[in-house]
Amino acid sequence: MMTRVVHVDIAHAPYDILIGRDLLSQAEKISGLLPQSRVAIVTNTTIAPLYLAGLVESLQAQGIQCQQIILPDGEKYKTWESLNLIMDALLTERAERKTTLIALGGGVIGDMTGFAAAIYQRGVPFIQIPTTLLAQVDSSVGGKTAINHPLGKNMIGAFYQPRLVLADLDSLSTLPDREFSAGMAEVIKYGLIDDPDFLLWLEDNIDGIMAREEQLLAEAIERCCQNKARIVAADEKETGQRALLNLGHTFGHAIEAGLGYGAWLHGEAVAAGMVLAAYASQAIGHLSAQDVERVIVLLQKARLPVVSPALGGERYKALMAQDKKVDAGRIKFILLRQLGEAYIGELPESAIDAALLAGCEAAR
Amino acid sequence: MMTRVVHVDIAHAPYDILIGRDLLSQAEKISGLLPQSRVAIVTNTTIAPLYLAGLVESLQAQGIQCQQIILPDGEKYKTWESLNLIMDALLTERAERKTTLIALGGGVIGDMTGFAAAIYQRGVPFIQIPTTLLAQVDSSVGGKTAINHPLGKNMIGAFYQPRLVLADLDSLSTLPDREFSAGMAEVIKYGLIDDPDFLLWLEDNIDGIMAREEQLLAEAIERCCQNKARIVAADEKETGQRALLNLGHTFGHAIEAGLGYGAWLHGEAVAAGMVLAAYASQAIGHLSAQDVERVIVLLQKARLPVVSPALGGERYKALMAQDKKVDAGRIKFILLRQLGEAYIGELPESAIDAALLAGCEAAR
Repeated sequence: MMTRVVHVDIAHAPYDILIGRDLLSQAEKISGLLPQSRVAIVTNTTIAPLYLAGLVESLQAQGIQCQQIILPDGEKYKTWESLNLIMDALLTERAERKTTLIALGGGVIGDMTGFAAAIYQRGVPFIQIPTTLLAQVDSSVGGKTAINHPLGKNMIGAFYQPRLVLADLDSLSTLPDREFSAGMAEVIKYGLIDDPDFLLWLEDNIDGIMAREEQLLAEAIERCCQNKARIVAADEKETGQRALLNLGHTFGHAIEAGLGYGAWLHGEAVAAGMVLAAYASQAIGHLSAQDVERVIVLLQKARLPVVSPALGGERYKALMAQDKKVDAGRIKFILLRQLGEAYIGELPESAIDAALLAGCEAAR
Repeated sequence: MMTRVVHVDIAHAPYDILIGRDLLSQAEKISGLLPQSRVAIVTNTTIAPLYLAGLVESLQAQGIQCQQIILPDGEKYKTWESLNLIMDALLTERAERKTTLIALGGGVIGDMTGFAAAIYQRGVPFIQIPTTLLAQVDSSVGGKTAINHPLGKNMIGAFYQPRLVLADLDSLSTLPDREFSAGMAEVIKYGLIDDPDFLLWLEDNIDGIMAREEQLLAEAIERCCQNKARIVAADEKETGQRALLNLGHTFGHAIEAGLGYGAWLHGEAVAAGMVLAAYASQAIGHLSAQDVERVIVLLQKARLPVVSPALGGERYKALMAQDKKVDAGRIKFILLRQLGEAYIGELPESAIDAALLAGCEAAR
């Protein structure tokens, strides 16, 4: 299989995303980018036994010194404390300003390692090796890094771009079904936001994708990365259109926070959140019932939850008011004008209520 | 007194430094820059009773909503824990992405508030109101923000530029003598690095400056800010010449860490560190004994320590090896080719030993 390349054209820090097979053993793709023959690889207890030794061996064969930092696995560890473990390890080993941090893992490892790279000694180089579908199509691209705070998800972080993203399809072979589905939520998101052709392609190919047919997977990941690269290059710091990428995330973050981080996977919450966003878009007259049903059916075929938990309307609103997309006290929602065309807008309270009534468990 | 303006010409984020009297009551200088009529002022228990009410009153008169966050005073509080107090307060009050953080205080408040602004919701606007001489001439300009880690000073931080710096001379009237002297260490530093005319001017006017004569102070602060603005605009991320601003800091940080943060003020450690750098520059044949004596005399007239504590050579070297200015295990020193001309270089161990022998307490 040919390695596909997506270029992210951010003016001050352009970089490539490589999508292909057996990339972890091709350390020469990494070594040319390093300012110093030294890296610190951050991973977790799940990924380490699967892929760490292979990556280290391949890097060492290129003469690169590898520090290994292994964190516990899970969204609930995306905290100050874990970040401090990385800082302690880097300082203890005297990692330098030219030492490159490599994130080997899913979205949590990528977000935390990226943030660690942004703030260690005021910034060191950083490479993403996403091992989950969600990280490959979304979180590893675009430079959003963060940790969670008890009062809100991703509330503390930085915009900090990687020098390279290596999306190795082989690493998806060990991905549990539930996490694969969670990644599909973000894949479907790109179709809904502004790529109606991709949405149709997904509807046509969803069964093959769920069977993890390799060519279909490579195609889906490449199209997601192209979409994300285009949006991020136009609006790195999310002053405008980049916010569209948060479709389903305002509701989704409320679900995650309301249930406690880690109860639902991020992608699961985004899936149910996109259904709520679709119902809300229907409530204000943009989508038809058939449109909403199309969204639900596609998500169901990706084995994702489409019914949100019954947290209660007041709790949803309180949690959403803590979202980052709030301006002068008003919550900004990502809504659908039609399938394949999202926009940023506000919602009357009645539409929020209608969406929660239609999309939450207690109502069904 | 006319307000002086120094422009910092950083391509992606240019801003002004205003130097003058009674600036704290001129909130119209701030309000025009705010993306939202809302600020969070971070200050400490020493500064709050002196200047916070006046600033808040002046901002509120412009219709600006002010959150007040008051931290304990001192370098020993420049920690994760204090940073978390800021995050907790911002999240509890639901500060938004357009809420501007204002640092009202010295270097510690400025560094921590700037770092908080860099990472809260991935970055919010930020204004510096430095109330100490050290912060006005050095730390508030140039966008270096950080907190300390038990294994090293300023090890965790970001490059993050303020939108405005207000250096109010009135706030220096309440500055304790010891802190005023500490600020003078950074003032003298600019003369030593690359402004021999300013060095001569300082030698001519040191008595009037130490008497805090207003016109002399304004002149000194403006020249320091011009020097710093020029260096920072040319090298924001310290890939080259900006490192010259660290003259005395590699030795100085070792002194601070070795004695425990807070035992000596930062400026005091820099003063003694500059003397060590001068001795080292003498040891490798650049400075004469008379040159070193000129440095010592000027620092003494500024009532600064010129003799370093007897930590022992091995301890100094171990502490310096943890400095950020280390590349492939080699410590980069800022040295003097002559007075008014600094450069970045390495030192043979014999020169480090000679400098410590000449400049440390046990040797005298």
